[in-house]
Amino acid sequence: MELQHKGRQSVEFFQPPSILSYAAVVGKKEGEGPLRSCFDQISEDSRFGQDTWEKAESELQKRALRCAMDKGGVETEDIDCIFSGDLLNQCVGSSFALRGLGVPSIGLYGACSTMAESLLLASMMLAGGFGFAAAAMTSSHFATAERQFRTPMEYGGQRTPTAQWTVTGSGAVILTAEGTGPYVTAATIGKVVDMGIKDVNNMGAAMAPAAYDTLKAHFDDLGRPPEYYDLIVTGDLGSVGRKIVVDFFQKDGVDISRVYNDCGLMIFDLKGQDVHAGGSGCGCSAAVLAGKLLDDVRTGKINRLLFAGTGSLQSPLSFQQGESIPAICHAVSICRERGGN
Amino acid sequence: MELQHKGRQSVEFFQPPSILSYAAVVGKKEGEGPLRSCFDQISEDSRFGQDTWEKAESELQKRALRCAMDKGGVETEDIDCIFSGDLLNQCVGSSFALRGLGVPSIGLYGACSTMAESLLLASMMLAGGFGFAAAAMTSSHFATAERQFRTPMEYGGQRTPTAQWTVTGSGAVILTAEGTGPYVTAATIGKVVDMGIKDVNNMGAAMAPAAYDTLKAHFDDLGRPPEYYDLIVTGDLGSVGRKIVVDFFQKDGVDISRVYNDCGLMIFDLKGQDVHAGGSGCGCSAAVLAGKLLDDVRTGKINRLLFAGTGSLQSPLSFQQGESIPAICHAVSICRERGGN
Repeated sequence: MELQHKGRQSVEFFQPPSILSYAAVVGKKEGEGPLRSCFDQISEDSRFGQDTWEKAESELQKRALRCAMDKGGVETEDIDCIFSGDLLNQCVGSSFALRGLGVPSIGLYGACSTMAESLLLASMMLAGGFGFAAAAMTSSHFATAERQFRTPMEYGGQRTPTAQWTVTGSGAVILTAEGTGPYVTAATIGKVVDMGIKDVNNMGAAMAPAAYDTLKAHFDDLGRPPEYYDLIVTGDLGSVGRKIVVDFFQKDGVDISRVYNDCGLMIFDLKGQDVHAGGSGCGCSAAVLAGKLLDDVRTGKINRLLFAGTGSLQSPLSFQQGESIPAICHAVSICRERGGN
Repeated sequence: MELQHKGRQSVEFFQPPSILSYAAVVGKKEGEGPLRSCFDQISEDSRFGQDTWEKAESELQKRALRCAMDKGGVETEDIDCIFSGDLLNQCVGSSFALRGLGVPSIGLYGACSTMAESLLLASMMLAGGFGFAAAAMTSSHFATAERQFRTPMEYGGQRTPTAQWTVTGSGAVILTAEGTGPYVTAATIGKVVDMGIKDVNNMGAAMAPAAYDTLKAHFDDLGRPPEYYDLIVTGDLGSVGRKIVVDFFQKDGVDISRVYNDCGLMIFDLKGQDVHAGGSGCGCSAAVLAGKLLDDVRTGKINRLLFAGTGSLQSPLSFQQGESIPAICHAVSICRERGGN
């Protein structure tokens, strides 16, 4: 068998899966940010018509998937597998969105790396010949994340300057084994990296080493320098983490700053929206990808995108037990042209 | 591209990945059960030398992986990807086991279906040509599960007759793209099924419809009747759920009872070990598979095994909010011979 595996951590698809359609659904605050014109749906109601925050998060995923399916002209019976996950305990945001759909499903946990992780696995499934169409999706909700990871919202806790703001949003992407692009041409699977950061209000710093590790592996494994890409985005390191990644590469004599941005910095106006170090949450990179970035690739505004999802893998309990924060980053290369190098 | 996809939910591998080695590590109670002679390690210390239950669960995974790697003669740098997950919030059992290993990793959430889910994805990765070797593993721990899903152990709550006992155990399996078997010849991806069961002390009943749904899809998609297999196991429905699955098939005029067992019934002596409806937890089916079943296939005691992992996807919060229990089941066909039908 011909191997589509390159270097230690990367794969390059001989028959790159094609992105058929995608959709982003977000909440009010995200709809007031700089990407307001990019989203498919913006809800003024942060409960999305549901009676709990958790059901609101499931509803976000349902709407994003439905919208992406409508845009692509596909029905549930056309989808061979949905890859999804979220930040909630036992990933109930995803599981409750999927019940009743009747579509084969694979549950993931990659924290805020989930959008990249789900794209990576969906692409492997299609490029391996295990199906015709797959969906990748994830979500986060400010209110479910605050309740679960931080303090009750009624408590009104002060946020530190390094803290990020969990995005209320969902992104869904439908991929097919063949199509007219954009194409997922390659991917790099991340390692769990833990540099000993223990401050859960500074996720950017905890995740930056994982982002550096995966990006470096991607460049090395595939022989693609940063300049290969028109845009490299992490999601979501915010302002603190982005700077650390730039610094790490600078120490290697590599300047990635010219082509590098972070989804957490793109979705909010950091000065005007009081979000401190930027956006975060699975839904942040998902909504930026499905709202803006894939459109930019489709329309040729950018030709080659490296989408690197970053997740911090601690739990509230592991934090209380004094543990440091392990992190992971998966990267997916999305190009307008089918061809690789 | 030739398609390895069959029917609605199933795949059949043209080049079936081979199982190189496997290991099961369990706690004291499991080591007193009927499979005591099958496990690689039995620990008298339920903390496994760690200072928290959660770290004990991570240690279980580390030991199972290390043992499987030693038995297969592989090192971490030989493994292209580890697929793992567990029951803990944010899957910290797995993430904390993986940090420092330096192996590309994919995090999963499938509750007690995780062993089957991880095997399925690892097999797809290898059969798709995306790597040479992969690992699939999961764990559960009685004390972490009680604390998280039920009541503090000090509370000494009464268990209902339908309740199952979370296994303290881990199973790890190393697969390679080529080898001498046993082979993963096919797999069926499950759908999220929710029949409205709300009793979290009766997981067997909540998961049985998902097991039936996936087994039926497997038989139909691949044209393999139950008799194709020497043994079909679910993990973990216990005595209540197993009976429901048998009943469902009986209504279809199919008798699967002759070849059908459940990992939750195999790992404990239901009469002598006070476990009520049987074992449960990700580690139950993982330890039974990696402790006993794969040995049985390797030695020819059984030639064809259908391993169907069943997971209930609720969270303690979704239960408190009055939601019913969604469930999923993934099935993996493990055969002594490479050939399919």
